[in-house]
Parts: sequence; structure tokens; C-alpha cells
Amino acid sequence: MEHFADKLTNLISKLNNPTVVGLDPRLSQIPEFIRANAQKEFGNTTQAVAKAIFDFNKGIIDAVHDIVPAVKPQIAFYECYGHHGFRAYEETVRYAQKKGMLVIGDAKRNDIGSTAEAYAAGHLGSVDIFGTPTSIVNADALTVTPYLGTDGIAPFTKVCESDGKGIFVLVRTSNPSADEIQGQTVGDQLMDEHVATLVEGWGRGLIGANGFSSVGAVVGATYPEEAKALRNIMPNQIFLVPGYGAQGGDADSVKNCFHSNGTGAIVNSSRDIIFAYVKKGKPAESYAEAAREAALAMKKDLGKLF
Amino acid sequence: MEHFADKLTNLISKLNNPTVVGLDPRLSQIPEFIRANAQKEFGNTTQAVAKAIFDFNKGIIDAVHDIVPAVKPQIAFYECYGHHGFRAYEETVRYAQKKGMLVIGDAKRNDIGSTAEAYAAGHLGSVDIFGTPTSIVNADALTVTPYLGTDGIAPFTKVCESDGKGIFVLVRTSNPSADEIQGQTVGDQLMDEHVATLVEGWGRGLIGANGFSSVGAVVGATYPEEAKALRNIMPNQIFLVPGYGAQGGDADSVKNCFHSNGTGAIVNSSRDIIFAYVKKGKPAESYAEAAREAALAMKKDLGKLF
Repeated sequence: MEHFADKLTNLISKLNNPTVVGLDPRLSQIPEFIRANAQKEFGNTTQAVAKAIFDFNKGIIDAVHDIVPAVKPQIAFYECYGHHGFRAYEETVRYAQKKGMLVIGDAKRNDIGSTAEAYAAGHLGSVDIFGTPTSIVNADALTVTPYLGTDGIAPFTKVCESDGKGIFVLVRTSNPSADEIQGQTVGDQLMDEHVATLVEGWGRGLIGANGFSSVGAVVGATYPEEAKALRNIMPNQIFLVPGYGAQGGDADSVKNCFHSNGTGAIVNSSRDIIFAYVKKGKPAESYAEAAREAALAMKKDLGKLF
Repeated sequence: MEHFADKLTNLISKLNNPTVVGLDPRLSQIPEFIRANAQKEFGNTTQAVAKAIFDFNKGIIDAVHDIVPAVKPQIAFYECYGHHGFRAYEETVRYAQKKGMLVIGDAKRNDIGSTAEAYAAGHLGSVDIFGTPTSIVNADALTVTPYLGTDGIAPFTKVCESDGKGIFVLVRTSNPSADEIQGQTVGDQLMDEHVATLVEGWGRGLIGANGFSSVGAVVGATYPEEAKALRNIMPNQIFLVPGYGAQGGDADSVKNCFHSNGTGAIVNSSRDIIFAYVKKGKPAESYAEAAREAALAMKKDLGKLF
């Protein structure tokens, strides 16, 4: 069973690009020609929305799969359209993998042990369908929350080990109110540093040939000073870094998420890539091309760092 | 727009029963005759699993809807079967509501603001389908996690206000490792007490005629001493209490979750009710009847408290 952190770091090296494209397909920003085509087939239904989302994603994936190692579909933007939306999520995961990309499901799931097992099985491993172990979503990795402690994480690390998958545990999120819990002082640390210590422990048994664990950490680009402290506590964690671009972070602000040799982090951009055509004032028909240009610009921007 | 906390507390009063039945339909424990019937129609597929889950839930809901105010489907046990499972979740929510029950979706969702909006819209409010606001899951309430602070909660409280819905924020979970984060000392409080202070604030604008807020709190039965402290910090929160029954909590251990007049909490039991037929050694065909008996026994057990 190939090791997730090895797969991801190898692909980052091969493409020389530590970035991930966030697939957050807000319906209102999906080009009109894609929406109209879906409506023509399915009317004003969630089924049509699901088709529009998947068609849109295919265009993005086709445009970036040879230059970007991974996509990160944000499941909220799929499941908010119910089971048809959830199907579009599953189809997106499969399509990206078929094109050679790794898929990090951004679901921020967690629960007590027996329930976390079900999430781990459905999103990463396999469930029992009348006696036959069957993969369902089969993403390569999943974001998870830490609030329940070890019990809620263990079922995920078990699947990481058995199925060569990965998780990224929320440590420091990129939003303005993150400090309300994550920035509280616990002993001589901040809460996110305390969580980082737990994450480092959870990942210790899952370190691959490249020195990184399949248990990674979400560390927002918007707290660069804090990233430095977290990098020291979690030397073997791959940092999944949201907050670059639309949320205000730039290349300098993500620098501390990397090791000094430029390894150990993967930076996400969503809206600024997939909806680059809006920001750049380009025709909707060229949305995929605009996404590729934006992805190349991001690669170049981060490439200056090391 | 009717107020969620008023609706829930009124129904608890009317039925004189502060309990909620957790619909955690583990396939392996669903009676063979239900599974076989679904397989006959759909073969060994996730579609068959979805049918088995929904048929099983219908039996439980039919058996308890006149004595129990609410159900709490745990979405992990549905979405682990992919989009067909998600459809069974939607169908379960609708069926329970049709039978007059309130539905608390146990999804423990959260994310940064713009993403939390999508979760809130999909699970509680409505999404825009090509210009038409459309309800998707339309549960009455949802469990959410607090780790991102106010930004991640505000989109949910907004929908609580506009659509008469509720949320229950994880404060103290029932699992053994809860202390690793929730039990850490922050200033002169434990972390869960710090979170409780935030929750009290988040719910202040949403207090209904009965004195309770539509922003409630999840407080596990397995930490009764901590429940007392949390009850003081959150006088207006309805406590959603997991951990009774299978997880080891009894009536005495949930007492501190209530006010001294017996209001302010709703206690969940999942496996001990829905799979009571297994525990009691009864024939699978009487699983619904066994569930009703177990629900009545739980009502009686909690009835002794006040």
C-alpha cells in the first residue's frame, strides 16, 4: 500500500509545485453556458446543479491536472444541494484521480470513535455492502477536526495505515475569529500549539520514506508568526495551508509553513483560481484557461520563496 | 416563524418526555428481513443499503413518534454509503417531520464563514436553485463544532433566526479523550467552560418565549460534575445530552444537565433504543415494538429525576 505523504510529496516534487486547487463551485459563479446546458437537460433542479458543478470541475481539472498535484473539493458546496450534490462530489473525486491528481476532501469531519469509523470508512476506506468491502468516496485524504481528542482521530489514522490514506487535522484556521479558541493560553502554550502537540503524536506511527507523516495539519496563511511555532512543534507534518489569495495571504505569509528547504507544505487557493475569469474580466468560455493561468501564476509566486 | 427552542420545549412538555432517539442505523444490526427485502429489489448495492436504512427508520419512527419529541439521525451512518445514503438521510428527516417529530441532524459541521453558510443553507435553510430558494435537508436543528469561533457559527445563527431553526454547539463530548482539549485549563476555566461562555453569547439574541435559546449545547452525560459548571454558565441553553445508555451514563449522571425544575435538557439514546431487540433477545420482526418499550423505559427512568 503506497503511503499518502510519500505520494503527495513525490508529486509536489515532480511538478515542482506545492499547491492545491480548491474546488468550491459556487453555483452563481459557474459560467452561464455551463448552467444553461445543465438546465436544458434537467430543468431547474438539484440534478441540474449537480451536472453544472461536475461539468465545471471537469474543465478545471482538465486545465490544471498536469501542473498541480492535488485538488481540494470543499464538500459543503456539494452537500448543500443534497444527494445529487453529494454525487457530484463523488464524481469529482473520481475524475480528478483518473487524471492523476490527489484529492483532499475538505469535510472537517469528526465524532466519537464508533461514528468517526463510519466517516473514515465512507470517505477514505471501505464500507461493508452485504458482505463485500466497497469503496465509496475513496478520496486520498480528508480534513478532520480535533475537538474530541484521540478517540475521534484514531479511526481515521487506522484507515490511513490500512488504505494508504491521509488526514489533515485543523490546528490553526485562517479565519478572523480563530483566536477565540485556538489562540487561548493553555499552560505555556496557545491552544493551537497544544493541538499541534497532539497531532504530532497522532502522526508518529505514519511517517513515510520522505520523512513526512500521513497525518498532516491545517495551518492558515493568515497567522504567519504562529505558523513558525507550529512548524517547530510538527516537523513531520505536511501543512495544508488555506488563506492564500482571496483570504488575504501572500507568498511571504505562507513562507513559515514550509521547512527552510521548501518542503513540508501545500498551499490552497480556491476562488482566485477556479473563478479567475471573473476577477480577470475574461469571457466565461475561457474559465478553464484563466484557471490554468492563475495556477501558473501562483506556482511562480510561491517558487520565489526557496 | 416559530422559534425552534419554543417548539422543542413545548413538545417535550406535551409528551412529558425529554428524550431524543438517535437514528444511527448500522447496517449489520438492521433486521435481516429488512435487508433481504432491500437486496431483493436493488441487489448488493448502496441503493439497497439506503432502502434498508430508510425502511428500518420508518419502523422506529412509526413506533415512537407519539411518545418521543425528536429524532437525531447521525449523518455519518448515512453519508458513509455515498449519495444513496445521503438520500436516505433526507428521506428520514422528511418522514420524521411528517409524523410530527422534530429532527436534530447530528452532523457536527463547521467551517470558515462563507463555507459555513453553505452548510447552514443546505441543512437548515434554503439554497438558490437557478433563482428559486429551495429547502434541501430542512432539518429543525443541527449539531456544529466550535473550533473556528464566531465566524463559523454566525451563518448558522442567521438561519436560526430567519428560518426558525436551531443549533447545538459541541461543548463537552461524551467520549473518554474529551479532556485532551475540552478539559485543558484556560485562565481560571476549563476549555469547555470557555466554549460555554462563547455559546451563551452566540445564543443571547435567540431566546424564545420559554426562556431558552435556539443555540443549544452538546454536553455529554459522562461528565456529570462538569455538567453542573456548564449549566451555570449557560442558563438559557438547551443541553443535548449524548452518552446515556450504551456509552455508560444513567439517569443520575444526566441530572446536572437539567435545571432543578426538570427543564433545559434533552437526553439522547441511540443503540439501546433502535437495536433494543438485539439486547433484549427479541425476534427481529418485533424490533419496532422493542424500540417503543425501550423508549418508554427511558422516559420512566428519567421521569424519576424531578
